[in-house]
Amino acid sequence: MATGSVKLLGVWASPFVNRVEIALKMKSVEPEFILETTLNKSELLLKSNPVYKKIPVLLHDEKPICESLVILQYIDDSWPSGPSILPSDPYDRAIAQFWASYIDEKWYPLVVEFMKAEGKEAKAAVLEKISEGNLLLEEAFIKINKGKSFFGGDRIGYLDIVLGSLLGWVKAIEMMDEMKILDETKMPSLAEWDKRFCSDNVVKDIIPQPEKLAEIHRKFHQMKKATSN
Amino acid sequence: MATGSVKLLGVWASPFVNRVEIALKMKSVEPEFILETTLNKSELLLKSNPVYKKIPVLLHDEKPICESLVILQYIDDSWPSGPSILPSDPYDRAIAQFWASYIDEKWYPLVVEFMKAEGKEAKAAVLEKISEGNLLLEEAFIKINKGKSFFGGDRIGYLDIVLGSLLGWVKAIEMMDEMKILDETKMPSLAEWDKRFCSDNVVKDIIPQPEKLAEIHRKFHQMKKATSN
Repeated sequence: MATGSVKLLGVWASPFVNRVEIALKMKSVEPEFILETTLNKSELLLKSNPVYKKIPVLLHDEKPICESLVILQYIDDSWPSGPSILPSDPYDRAIAQFWASYIDEKWYPLVVEFMKAEGKEAKAAVLEKISEGNLLLEEAFIKINKGKSFFGGDRIGYLDIVLGSLLGWVKAIEMMDEMKILDETKMPSLAEWDKRFCSDNVVKDIIPQPEKLAEIHRKFHQMKKATSN
Repeated sequence: MATGSVKLLGVWASPFVNRVEIALKMKSVEPEFILETTLNKSELLLKSNPVYKKIPVLLHDEKPICESLVILQYIDDSWPSGPSILPSDPYDRAIAQFWASYIDEKWYPLVVEFMKAEGKEAKAAVLEKISEGNLLLEEAFIKINKGKSFFGGDRIGYLDIVLGSLLGWVKAIEMMDEMKILDETKMPSLAEWDKRFCSDNVVKDIIPQPEKLAEIHRKFHQMKKATSN
């Protein structure tokens, strides 16, 4: 069992930080949360993640680990006595890692592109690509969970954390744009999973409410505008 | 020890396929190599990797595993009795995974951008960004290898495979463009490592010679041009 000091550099509104918070909570590890501000990066952050200068950073005994997917596996490896995060079977683990990388490199960048697109038409074009991704994820969920509640089986695991952490922002963007990104009729199994995930005891106090995220998004852009004037 | 049939869908000129070949050779596993052609994808490839439709795909007992970094970890997990590919210490493993993702998502895409850039000026601009990355990799190598020959210590491991597999193409691009991408004077430790890696017994028959890659690149583009006419 890993011991020593555990610090997490982040902000509460980052889904990538939320991933780390969920994983640590699964392992009953309480980190010291060091709040970063998006516009003024701390010396500690710049020193700990000189390549990307981005949160989250986990400091375990002052040693930095960066990139949320890498941190999830590190937490799983370092606190093996808690519930498993990654599947233990090599094939199941490979499949989980494949989809995690798809979500982070293909699917979520489209959601961000949707948010930034200007005009209903441009947004609709991106939405079409997201919808194709949604169908792939729906199929993957049905294949992976083998009739159980979560990607991870009877309890949340790696892929639940990876996809689930992004749901708060997806719903906030739906609210701001008054357009549906996740169409329950086309992804009924994931829609049910979404409800189970967001009400899970480990998760529910960590993933922020969409209303709060939409609010912080508005404030951040006002602040950015004011700073650049 | 994993058993069963092992097939690898790929082409010999792909660095991502070469990674899988090296990892399997480390584990003394001889796959059946199923040759794909870039312009005509096989039914088996489309069925095995419906999301990306890309090589490499490893078929282990007919079950497909896609994405080279995922495959490397799968091979390490599935044949644990061979030499380790990933570091066994959780922190060393996290650091290796961090740099592998940096190489694949930041550094190598710049090399590809350099190859595609038109005109000496555009190429020089990309080269400046690559050089910053080269320095980061040189520093990382010195930090990680702890005075030993490879990223993996006394023998090649995960990061050696990930970075080393790309060297053939980097040198082919240097030859085609008559410009230096890897400046030995600024990355002396990596330059030495490069020689050791390319002459390693496990590697040397797998990574193609730069001359052959440059030749295949020319042929491929002639063929593509002829097809589109």
